[in-house]
Amino acid sequence: MGEIEIGLGKTARRGFGLDELTIVPSRRTRDAELVDLSWELQGFRFELPVLAAPCDSVVSPNNAGAIDEMGGVAVLDLEGLWTRYEDPTAVLAEIAELDDDVVASRLQEIYKQPVDPDLIVSRVHAIRESGAVAAGSVTPHRIEELLPKVLESELDLLVIRSTVVSAEHVTKAGSKDSDTNQVEPLNLKTFIRQLDIPVLVGSCTSYQAALHLMRTGAAGVLVGVGTSTGATTADTFGVGVPLATAIADARAARMRHLDETGVYVHLIADGGMDTGGDVAKALACGADAVMIGSPLAGATDAPGHGCHWAPVGARADVPHSARIRVPLRGTQREVLVGPSDSSDGRLDLMGALRGAMASSGFESLKDFQKAELMVVPRGETGQ
Amino acid sequence: MGEIEIGLGKTARRGFGLDELTIVPSRRTRDAELVDLSWELQGFRFELPVLAAPCDSVVSPNNAGAIDEMGGVAVLDLEGLWTRYEDPTAVLAEIAELDDDVVASRLQEIYKQPVDPDLIVSRVHAIRESGAVAAGSVTPHRIEELLPKVLESELDLLVIRSTVVSAEHVTKAGSKDSDTNQVEPLNLKTFIRQLDIPVLVGSCTSYQAALHLMRTGAAGVLVGVGTSTGATTADTFGVGVPLATAIADARAARMRHLDETGVYVHLIADGGMDTGGDVAKALACGADAVMIGSPLAGATDAPGHGCHWAPVGARADVPHSARIRVPLRGTQREVLVGPSDSSDGRLDLMGALRGAMASSGFESLKDFQKAELMVVPRGETGQ
Amino acid sequence: MGEIEIGLGKTARRGFGLDELTIVPSRRTRDAELVDLSWELQGFRFELPVLAAPCDSVVSPNNAGAIDEMGGVAVLDLEGLWTRYEDPTAVLAEIAELDDDVVASRLQEIYKQPVDPDLIVSRVHAIRESGAVAAGSVTPHRIEELLPKVLESELDLLVIRSTVVSAEHVTKAGSKDSDTNQVEPLNLKTFIRQLDIPVLVGSCTSYQAALHLMRTGAAGVLVGVGTSTGATTADTFGVGVPLATAIADARAARMRHLDETGVYVHLIADGGMDTGGDVAKALACGADAVMIGSPLAGATDAPGHGCHWAPVGARADVPHSARIRVPLRGTQREVLVGPSDSSDGRLDLMGALRGAMASSGFESLKDFQKAELMVVPRGETGQ
Amino acid sequence: MGEIEIGLGKTARRGFGLDELTIVPSRRTRDAELVDLSWELQGFRFELPVLAAPCDSVVSPNNAGAIDEMGGVAVLDLEGLWTRYEDPTAVLAEIAELDDDVVASRLQEIYKQPVDPDLIVSRVHAIRESGAVAAGSVTPHRIEELLPKVLESELDLLVIRSTVVSAEHVTKAGSKDSDTNQVEPLNLKTFIRQLDIPVLVGSCTSYQAALHLMRTGAAGVLVGVGTSTGATTADTFGVGVPLATAIADARAARMRHLDETGVYVHLIADGGMDTGGDVAKALACGADAVMIGSPLAGATDAPGHGCHWAPVGARADVPHSARIRVPLRGTQREVLVGPSDSSDGRLDLMGALRGAMASSGFESLKDFQKAELMVVPRGETGQ
Repeated sequence: MGEIEIGLGKTARRGFGLDELTIVPSRRTRDAELVDLSWELQGFRFELPVLAAPCDSVVSPNNAGAIDEMGGVAVLDLEGLWTRYEDPTAVLAEIAELDDDVVASRLQEIYKQPVDPDLIVSRVHAIRESGAVAAGSVTPHRIEELLPKVLESELDLLVIRSTVVSAEHVTKAGSKDSDTNQVEPLNLKTFIRQLDIPVLVGSCTSYQAALHLMRTGAAGVLVGVGTSTGATTADTFGVGVPLATAIADARAARMRHLDETGVYVHLIADGGMDTGGDVAKALACGADAVMIGSPLAGATDAPGHGCHWAPVGARADVPHSARIRVPLRGTQREVLVGPSDSSDGRLDLMGALRGAMASSGFESLKDFQKAELMVVPRGETGQ
Repeated sequence: MGEIEIGLGKTARRGFGLDELTIVPSRRTRDAELVDLSWELQGFRFELPVLAAPCDSVVSPNNAGAIDEMGGVAVLDLEGLWTRYEDPTAVLAEIAELDDDVVASRLQEIYKQPVDPDLIVSRVHAIRESGAVAAGSVTPHRIEELLPKVLESELDLLVIRSTVVSAEHVTKAGSKDSDTNQVEPLNLKTFIRQLDIPVLVGSCTSYQAALHLMRTGAAGVLVGVGTSTGATTADTFGVGVPLATAIADARAARMRHLDETGVYVHLIADGGMDTGGDVAKALACGADAVMIGSPLAGATDAPGHGCHWAPVGARADVPHSARIRVPLRGTQREVLVGPSDSSDGRLDLMGALRGAMASSGFESLKDFQKAELMVVPRGETGQ
Repeated sequence: MGEIEIGLGKTARRGFGLDELTIVPSRRTRDAELVDLSWELQGFRFELPVLAAPCDSVVSPNNAGAIDEMGGVAVLDLEGLWTRYEDPTAVLAEIAELDDDVVASRLQEIYKQPVDPDLIVSRVHAIRESGAVAAGSVTPHRIEELLPKVLESELDLLVIRSTVVSAEHVTKAGSKDSDTNQVEPLNLKTFIRQLDIPVLVGSCTSYQAALHLMRTGAAGVLVGVGTSTGATTADTFGVGVPLATAIADARAARMRHLDETGVYVHLIADGGMDTGGDVAKALACGADAVMIGSPLAGATDAPGHGCHWAPVGARADVPHSARIRVPLRGTQREVLVGPSDSSDGRLDLMGALRGAMASSGFESLKDFQKAELMVVPRGETGQ
Repeated sequence: MGEIEIGLGKTARRGFGLDELTIVPSRRTRDAELVDLSWELQGFRFELPVLAAPCDSVVSPNNAGAIDEMGGVAVLDLEGLWTRYEDPTAVLAEIAELDDDVVASRLQEIYKQPVDPDLIVSRVHAIRESGAVAAGSVTPHRIEELLPKVLESELDLLVIRSTVVSAEHVTKAGSKDSDTNQVEPLNLKTFIRQLDIPVLVGSCTSYQAALHLMRTGAAGVLVGVGTSTGATTADTFGVGVPLATAIADARAARMRHLDETGVYVHLIADGGMDTGGDVAKALACGADAVMIGSPLAGATDAPGHGCHWAPVGARADVPHSARIRVPLRGTQREVLVGPSDSSDGRLDLMGALRGAMASSGFESLKDFQKAELMVVPRGETGQ
């Protein structure tokens, strides 16, 4: 479609959301059991292309093992409650019971408790002891400060994640953040190349931003608005790119980066996917895996007790997101791999993905990225 | 419009649903009585271009005669309750009264009762004795197993139907299904050519899939999402093509197949049509007839007692569709041929079709496929 | 935009409704008092470009004078209650009080009372005596039968109106209609040329249909779906063209007809306009005047007592439209020419039109047809 | 996209609203504290690009100082209650308590009280004494009459504002308006050039209208529908241009005017912006500042006591807009500059703008006008 003229001499591209797309079946179908959902990331092999988002409402040291066993990756927020409190159980229970009118201010108080770097080490150790791949996230603003303990913890996979991350962030020396003082600008490129564990970094939403993040040496780039909670960047700021276009643009950046360097950087679609259909379409647009937040926060056995809230970044000037109540549908296991007695696509996300690949005729995730897509009116579900 | 760029280097076609189209009247009008709704299929002549869908909620051996008398074709699900139970009356009544929270699991139990092949013979005989054309459906996974009894039953018209059917399904020997063991892959092409009754096969939603199904030797191909019940492939899987585009693409395949072989394969639009306008638009897009489910399930005298649920396929790994309650509007006769004192298009589907053809100036169904179409905003009803 | 491909090798035009358009102000504004809303039709001059639709709920012999005095034209349905009943007052009151579940069948009964041709004469005389231009409508099926009395009545302006009218209707001798027997096909061209009063004929919705109606010698052509009541052709039949495109196409036919014959045929936008904005946009698309139904039926002093129902055509096979309740907003005078203390555009339609022309800088209706239009998302109201 | 054919030979441009756009992040991000929101207008420097709209519900002599102190400009309606009543406090309270059915007529009565020119002087003096920049608005119809007192008052910034203003308004001598007699047409060009205070004039919505207003010598041009209250020009009249396109077109006019004259005329987006995202998008489309009405009227400490109504123009023939109740969200300070504990973008408009610029990587307002925009389905919020 190219450029649309929104006014005389002022143009814009058209961006597409996942809810405007469907996957067109190819002429071949296959048994769902013959579909292979595995993928690899710098030596790690995962049976399912799904990461549980680093939110206190989604991942705890206690459920990381179970998620790993299902085939996914649980990413613990290393600046969350589990590294701020010796035992956050009571705090998690309290958050779920707060009245709506006090939740924002109380959340701010709760997260003012400083991060205890030693807790990073013990939490990661607990996850490793469960036999799971230990993955944890930090924000770009604190990664340098927290890195020594992260390395000491023997983390397997590091996620550097904020609502919007760029390879070149402009800051001024002496600016303050909520917990600490005197943050210097982070040169992600220099920084990531020094680490010898795989790093995922994001979120980004454009070709240029994705390409620059790829050039930092990251093993993967998160693509999307970052969270599917109340942190609605687009509502508040007017900034954002619909997920299908963001993934497809990042896919173009991945091809260029591969051509220039021979390195394949993985794309993780991040946030805003609620159904198996959403997951399937994100992968068909070019993602290698998805990061899932609110569907897992809405599980009956999730740490958030049916509530979901965004991780607190290091920036005090951005309005803190509200806690939202997520409709309970089943356990985290039922959400990810079923069984499901529902047909709305909100349980058994991986079974639905398997069904999508089987009925459209694809065997592997990489093949599935070649699936034909069709644009339909928003929310249209194939007639 | 061709290809739309959804991201850099990633394109998609635009697909259209029936609710985005209207039929443009030509400059001539005609009396509704002068409109001819008949069509022929390999020696059978039907007065109305409508098939009642093979669902236990829609067709029983008891109403097939009445539907035939109106001019339509009733297709019995040969893997439904009538071939699993000697007398399914009580089961049908029970389904309509189940509470929502138990319906899914109870439906699975009810349909675990195995198909009794001898009942296929007796049900088809009952339909033939009513004087009607005997039409029945089986799923691709069980057709080989059930075929001997189907042939013994002297069925007139065989429908091979599943949500998505392809001419080349990839399976592995030894995979299990819910009722039986050891299903070998079905080569539809070899199989259909051996039968000497007309076969309809589907559903498919793309040019390539339709073309390959045509090459199996089928007399007709079903086009669409397969059912209009809760089996929402697009929601669950993200897979699907809006019906207008699916029909128009299959029409292009029909033209190519006709050009290559001289054989005209009929297109049956399958599912998702609720009003006379929907039926008219499906035919104007290129369908030769329509398969109707939920509007007939919602008749006061339908077997489903006001409920509708999708046929159970042979695949246990796909979530079973929910039973839905369909608003009651009139008898099956009133739904198909009136009389109607309503103007919302949900009764007298065939009268409305006749009205559409009369007011837009077409005499025969084949002519009507040349009607000019117009794209309007979704749900727009001609101002 | 030209043709849109809805499937391989199958194209459709995009049609636009009035609710997708806005009028772009030109660089000049003017006082509303300097706007001229008058128009002429074969020797008649009207101060306002508005015709009250020939519906029993809108026009009676009693209010025709008042509408004329405001500057509009009241068109009496010459096959309505006023020519079927000596005194329809009680019947009109009854219709407004019928329960929803009996209204359709009771309306059919009420309109089974045959038309008394002598009442045509007396009703038209009553209107003429009020000093108003006497305008009346008949359906194409009955015009030949009723013509002698119409001529005897000295009607000033004849409207031949049905949901869809074509210059060449195909019928068969001996087909029956609801009131009479043995209707022969009407050759509008031969017929209209014989009359020496101006004739308006419609409705039509396409370039070809409009052009052929123009060639009948009509002074004006009605464009649109015919009525804005429950007679939803598009819902029931799937047939229709959104009004903005229908008017613009008819405008192209008017230009061609003018070029070929030197005769300017007037376009009357018919139905579906509820606000002053709708009226303004219909005129800016190319209409010379508008025919208004439901907004006038919804007047506190309308004959329909707050109800509206479509005129009964001569066709018994089309479902009779439902009676709808129209929200009461003010008197017919307030609806047409105000005063209004509301800003939703549903009162003072002509004042709003005047405002539209003033603020967009046009002095006459003919100039206003050159106004620049802009396509906006459906229902968008200029941000 | 250019021209869209809405009918044969009739074309229209596509207009875009702010709710169809998002801002695409560039590859660089920056600290929010490094974003500069200041702008200058003919010697005045303002810290924030926001003007409080000249509505009695938004600005009073009492809150102008506080708005100025925050960095914005409060524009007093010089034909509003504060120049009609010695003490309008009771009237303002009364308006907020009127029942819906009497509010329109009572508002008309209240605003029939004539403007007392001496009150203009005293109100402006009161604002100047608070230390604020004194800005006031008049309608084009009354500016000549009121000018002597405006000049005597030593106003700093004059806004000439009406729903639609053109540089060449056609009127007739002797036309009457609601308060006075005998208004002569205003030649804005001659008039504005004589004044030596900066003048903002509008609103306009098209390239031509904006260009002609720029040629009057105005320091700035208001772009938009004029108010965000019930004065729905598009609903009532069908006239209007969605705000994003209106701003982009005016931006093109600004470039041409700059090229022709060397003078940079500021664009003030006027009306229809409710969230920080709306403000950011208006500026990214090309506006230099925004004029905000209803969000400020909805402040707990606003003069309108939670109600909002449009200023009364000089035209009695246009329906007076309704008073609307605006949901209360916080103080005017919280609306403009926070703090906010909400993430819906309706509080801390300027903080959200700062966040938009930071996360998309722009340092100054002028740079931000180069931000990449993306068209998304209406209401889409970045997935």
